[in-house]
Amino acid sequence: MSADTPSPETSEDVKANEAIAPSSKLAHFPADEPLELDSGVKLGPWQIAYETYGELNADKSNAIVICHALTGDQYVASTNPVTGKPGWWELMVGPGRPVDTDHYFVICANVLGGCLGTTGPATMNPQTGVPYGLDLPVITIRDMVRAQARLVDYLGIDTLFAVMGGSMGGMQVLQWAVSYPERVFAAVPIAAAARHTSQNIAFHEVGRQAIMADPNWRQGTYIQEGVRPTKGLAVARMAAHVTYMSDESLHQKFGRNLQDRDNLTFGFDADFQIESYLRHQGMTFVDRFDANSYLYVTRAMDYFDLADQFDGALPLAFAGTNTRFCVMSFTSDWLFPTSESRQVVKALNAAAANVSFVEIESDRGHDSFLLDVPEMFETIRGFLTGAARARGVPAPGGEA
Amino acid sequence: MSADTPSPETSEDVKANEAIAPSSKLAHFPADEPLELDSGVKLGPWQIAYETYGELNADKSNAIVICHALTGDQYVASTNPVTGKPGWWELMVGPGRPVDTDHYFVICANVLGGCLGTTGPATMNPQTGVPYGLDLPVITIRDMVRAQARLVDYLGIDTLFAVMGGSMGGMQVLQWAVSYPERVFAAVPIAAAARHTSQNIAFHEVGRQAIMADPNWRQGTYIQEGVRPTKGLAVARMAAHVTYMSDESLHQKFGRNLQDRDNLTFGFDADFQIESYLRHQGMTFVDRFDANSYLYVTRAMDYFDLADQFDGALPLAFAGTNTRFCVMSFTSDWLFPTSESRQVVKALNAAAANVSFVEIESDRGHDSFLLDVPEMFETIRGFLTGAARARGVPAPGGEA
Repeated sequence: MSADTPSPETSEDVKANEAIAPSSKLAHFPADEPLELDSGVKLGPWQIAYETYGELNADKSNAIVICHALTGDQYVASTNPVTGKPGWWELMVGPGRPVDTDHYFVICANVLGGCLGTTGPATMNPQTGVPYGLDLPVITIRDMVRAQARLVDYLGIDTLFAVMGGSMGGMQVLQWAVSYPERVFAAVPIAAAARHTSQNIAFHEVGRQAIMADPNWRQGTYIQEGVRPTKGLAVARMAAHVTYMSDESLHQKFGRNLQDRDNLTFGFDADFQIESYLRHQGMTFVDRFDANSYLYVTRAMDYFDLADQFDGALPLAFAGTNTRFCVMSFTSDWLFPTSESRQVVKALNAAAANVSFVEIESDRGHDSFLLDVPEMFETIRGFLTGAARARGVPAPGGEA
Repeated sequence: MSADTPSPETSEDVKANEAIAPSSKLAHFPADEPLELDSGVKLGPWQIAYETYGELNADKSNAIVICHALTGDQYVASTNPVTGKPGWWELMVGPGRPVDTDHYFVICANVLGGCLGTTGPATMNPQTGVPYGLDLPVITIRDMVRAQARLVDYLGIDTLFAVMGGSMGGMQVLQWAVSYPERVFAAVPIAAAARHTSQNIAFHEVGRQAIMADPNWRQGTYIQEGVRPTKGLAVARMAAHVTYMSDESLHQKFGRNLQDRDNLTFGFDADFQIESYLRHQGMTFVDRFDANSYLYVTRAMDYFDLADQFDGALPLAFAGTNTRFCVMSFTSDWLFPTSESRQVVKALNAAAANVSFVEIESDRGHDSFLLDVPEMFETIRGFLTGAARARGVPAPGGEA
């Protein structure tokens, strides 16, 4: 596969996004190099914003694509310029980390439909001169992966050493391995699933309805109307955030502890610490995320059903694969429970794939993949090192 | 305890509520017979709307109080006049049912803070001439039970044969047994807990924030302003409804089935059946429930912590009790999981109380207590029959 020629970054949508993602690299594809979406639409011009860490080696064999989750971004191991906070996976990615950037070349791109530089609903629609809003076609996980594959082409890389990610990132990992099996040497889907369950869809629908109920949403045209559906988006975030934690972690972190007071106030202020925590989560989220992007990205997750791409037979998705898989789940994750990862593992086994599966003990729920869970780090360090040796990539701690 | 003299029902708040609950009986208490609330406020005048089923026997020994859940009402076994739907527990209560109204006298009252005839935030505040809104003091579960005890006084009943209820109803059952141990012969808390957990509070807070985010909420003054925060209330209901079902029941009922279509629409309409189901739940809920009541009643649940009434020692709550308990939970209930019921049972055991505990196999989540779960019915029929014999009440199927 040859790299596309980088195009000059001068179109309207680039300008519209520069303010949002000032530090990101951008791969821009003009109208005659569109992205063909599952909806049937050919999207173009379009662009993808990304960060890289480490150096690509001479034979281009050490590249790892990291796929971010629903509200993640490309700043996996560097400061997010919008929030000023450290990268979301700095415990995992960096010099000496499990994904050791002294040895691996890491690529992380903002997803299609996102709001941090990649084409999304806030991007200027060149046909109308205003942001796409709901005129952007609905995006799928496969579309996100198609966009990343185009980026990998653009970077001149044929086969990735690994693709990794948690939650929606893990969905993308699975899709990568299915859509481009010959381009993925190793795959690490964490806290993920081959489909979004009815309960998952339900929670997302609550969030979308909260956004759409906000009168400032205005059928998605709020940017050009100079308003923002921040209240609805904050409620959506709060509803989702509860699902990312376990009952146990909420109990340990907050219990029924009161907020800055010795007694109940007999009012509707935040009496309990969990209430002020959630309100804070909602309020800070709206500063870094676009409401329409939230609609699009949740929709992409809802639509995800890998088996459905193969007439309902998940093992067929992996037929003949040579990719090595390390599937990982967490005991207290009730949003993407171990049973969903087991479905993936069963299908991989049925396809005689090379797969290891680890259910990691953690009481911190779905968010465990983002947290300091040593067993996860050790497992990934070991898996990548073993895979590097198998591929002949210089690995941390030894020669290939 | 002597019954209060029924007062003439002519005050403003009665008139305000008659339209809402046309068929209910009302016990009205004038300003000089106030209800003393946990907040310290003396609420008066106040009233409680209730339904009864069956006949009170001569020695008044066959009365059962049924406590309803968050969005329940007094129409436990008769048609709800607002919705036109059958009573919410007709499978449980009625002639020949487990709570056999051929033998027991059943009382079910709308909770304090509710919106179907009992004093709540939609009731006219006699001091201002407009509905209370947020001027109503925050209500607790203990306040709800205090109000019911006043109703039981009013009906001339000293000791209840039983108090029963699920979810928030079960919280009231526990509070009844703790506040009035000598007045409760048997107690059946179902799918309940001695406290609201951090996760429970979190989900409620999401719902409250959804209501308060609706510009039609207007700090709770929407009634006099002629608007209604229906969108926010619908989102609150949707968020809560997901927690009432299990992942398994959602999977069985909806899975990823599409709505009236063979294919995904690549849009934001309700593609999946679970989406249209949830939207329907939200839309119909706003026709029968008041948004401010939703704030008050969820707050009451959040405040509930029985141990906290006894310096953190739950067994002290039940010290010396002679009440017989039948505690019940459901395997797939993740909102009020079996572990919470076990805490109650442990405390009852530590207090040497008479307690039986049944965890019922059901894959239908928290809502199981409202559904056709034969093992629940058999258990309750058996428990009540045994308790009736122990108390000398003529019981179904045999003499006392």
